[in-house]
Amino acid sequence: MGESTLVSLACSQCCQRLEADALWNTCPACGGVLLAQYDLDRARRSFRPEALRDRPWNLWRYAELLPVRDPLYRLTLGEGGTPLLAAPRLARQLGLPKLWLKDEGRNPTGSFKSRGLAVAVSWARELGARAVALPSAGNAAAALSAYAARADIPAYVFLPADTPPTIVRECLAYGAHVFRVRGLITDCGRIVRRLAPLLGWADLSTLREPYRAEGKKTMGIELAEQLGWRLPDVIVYPTGGGTGIVGMWKAFDELAHLDLLGTERPRFVLVQPEGCAPLVRAFHSGAERAEPWDDATTLAPGLRVPATIGDALVLDAVRRSGGTAVAVSDREILDGMQLLARSEGLLVSPEAGATVAAVRRLREAGWLAGDEEVVLFLTGNGLKHPELLPDDTPVPILDPDDPLLPRRLAADGHQH
Amino acid sequence: MGESTLVSLACSQCCQRLEADALWNTCPACGGVLLAQYDLDRARRSFRPEALRDRPWNLWRYAELLPVRDPLYRLTLGEGGTPLLAAPRLARQLGLPKLWLKDEGRNPTGSFKSRGLAVAVSWARELGARAVALPSAGNAAAALSAYAARADIPAYVFLPADTPPTIVRECLAYGAHVFRVRGLITDCGRIVRRLAPLLGWADLSTLREPYRAEGKKTMGIELAEQLGWRLPDVIVYPTGGGTGIVGMWKAFDELAHLDLLGTERPRFVLVQPEGCAPLVRAFHSGAERAEPWDDATTLAPGLRVPATIGDALVLDAVRRSGGTAVAVSDREILDGMQLLARSEGLLVSPEAGATVAAVRRLREAGWLAGDEEVVLFLTGNGLKHPELLPDDTPVPILDPDDPLLPRRLAADGHQH
Repeated sequence: MGESTLVSLACSQCCQRLEADALWNTCPACGGVLLAQYDLDRARRSFRPEALRDRPWNLWRYAELLPVRDPLYRLTLGEGGTPLLAAPRLARQLGLPKLWLKDEGRNPTGSFKSRGLAVAVSWARELGARAVALPSAGNAAAALSAYAARADIPAYVFLPADTPPTIVRECLAYGAHVFRVRGLITDCGRIVRRLAPLLGWADLSTLREPYRAEGKKTMGIELAEQLGWRLPDVIVYPTGGGTGIVGMWKAFDELAHLDLLGTERPRFVLVQPEGCAPLVRAFHSGAERAEPWDDATTLAPGLRVPATIGDALVLDAVRRSGGTAVAVSDREILDGMQLLARSEGLLVSPEAGATVAAVRRLREAGWLAGDEEVVLFLTGNGLKHPELLPDDTPVPILDPDDPLLPRRLAADGHQH
Repeated sequence: MGESTLVSLACSQCCQRLEADALWNTCPACGGVLLAQYDLDRARRSFRPEALRDRPWNLWRYAELLPVRDPLYRLTLGEGGTPLLAAPRLARQLGLPKLWLKDEGRNPTGSFKSRGLAVAVSWARELGARAVALPSAGNAAAALSAYAARADIPAYVFLPADTPPTIVRECLAYGAHVFRVRGLITDCGRIVRRLAPLLGWADLSTLREPYRAEGKKTMGIELAEQLGWRLPDVIVYPTGGGTGIVGMWKAFDELAHLDLLGTERPRFVLVQPEGCAPLVRAFHSGAERAEPWDDATTLAPGLRVPATIGDALVLDAVRRSGGTAVAVSDREILDGMQLLARSEGLLVSPEAGATVAAVRRLREAGWLAGDEEVVLFLTGNGLKHPELLPDDTPVPILDPDDPLLPRRLAADGHQH
């Protein structure tokens, strides 16, 4: 395995440099988002396709471009290494022959959040953290709870009061300290920022610490590796806080420095629900930052993020990539989920369903050409949303000894 | 990718040989279980560690030892390639330093069943099947439904009337034709055997067709590859129908023919719940076959299998391996699930929880020595059993503006 080449942290706003081997949140000078910097010349020596080939198929195979220096601290539940699937039937239905699905729901705890938290919890442990905390719409809380259990340190998770019970109960199963909060994820975040310094918790609120983005960027590295060290024309990404886009954009630049990619970049399609689309609104209004969204409502918990500290970074990355931003309805999200399940055998979260809805719109509008290679990031597993599965009450109950069964099923059109 | 070297099918009872390229169920002569036979000398040429290294990380990397001749028919949702995880904390608690966890819950549809059905549905399609059907305790039905959706053919699944609703609804999401049946999985099986020939369905009841075992055996091939082409001392396997044990035992012999393994074999530990333990009872009574279990009851749906056509094969494999059979209580199963979640950050199904309970007993009894290398097969994902997650009603709801929060949480011992 490779060695981390982390050298420092740099503020994305005022460019101040900070010592790498200490736990930071935002920039002490200006409050901006901090990003990790690596010694890419050193990384180049060992981060080669041939060398990677013999490393385990989890995100630590990219250790040179991640924090965590001592391999003993690298927590793994086998995160990353998710399949990049062809989708022939969906491709035909959408008129996009070169369509790929990146099934992030196959990560530990059923979502892409495990990437960021595997790295953040590992690094916090290596730097001596005694407890970890974060606000979450659900998936991040489950991932933090699992990695904290694996690391044997207490986890504190704060969820909106109306978070689906399955997610709350999942966190409890891992032994986390779980709290519901009257309000949205932003209110949960206020509590964590207030309590963390007072109670000795490491605050792992996304992008308010520089480590989760490093874990999330492995989605981009992995995609490049799976495509043979090249990138697709378009990446469609459901966006809450936007850490994934920030991380992948950063990863592509780092890979270019390692001569594993050229200057080409995919266009990012940022997808949000119509009931909470602060970044989509900002993108189309030409604003550099996003105004908080009032009365955020959507059935996709992971996308009910009315404000994010990463707004400027996300909007900048999407614009520089030549991408766009799309808001889709909850109805379209459900249709997207159903299409993935029935056409491709993939049970996904509503956030993932939103990508299908966005692609359909962009293809119809001609923004997507039929010959473009498009990758949809399916960020969550549908098993985390039993409340969105079809109703089972119409399912008939049969008597195994009913002599009329064959005739009845044949009459119902079940003969083939 | 490699080419299938399938040459014929052979009856495990009367040894009759059958043509490979036709859909068979049990032996037409004696009703015995059919097993696939390969041209292992031909397979040896391309099935080499160096060659495998460059193949995609799903079970089709082992194509030489699987049916399906035309790669176009190889359905994949990225099944297999599941992580083999160290479990340091659990290892300490069980007094087994060399403990590994094979996390099969990371497969598509959240269970190891996807391996058998990826292969069986692909092969059925290549041989022209127009519809597929099976009886199931739940996980096999979900897997069949997903692969049938991917293959664009109708799936018919028959489940016991009291199958957890989440599993029923999952099958519906994939667009399968779902039926509940008054009775157990054996009653569902009677219906499928009666209807399949009349309605033109391919009957994929496990071990009543020779193909699912071929997919399941990849658990054994993958384990050997992950350990660097060697095997552990002991494999602990939760056993319903027992196809996994039959498949893995077969795989080890095939790998030995390819000179990738020697004559050493792991001891199999067959685990069943006390409420349904026909194979455990037969093992300890010295019987060659198992009597059906009356009034089967357990909270592990996948282990509520009162009778299996593979009983003789399973018992023979466990005995020849020098293994044993253990029955555990539902209470122990829940404890095992909790231990995995809280100590290792793994949310697993009750079937998987049963393996921890079995190991604890065998270690205490001295059957397992502290220096032995032991692999637990965690066959299912805990997300498939929301009904078994902890109750969330005690979770407090906080007011984000409550000035007393810090003091109250500190008083509750949350300061670190």
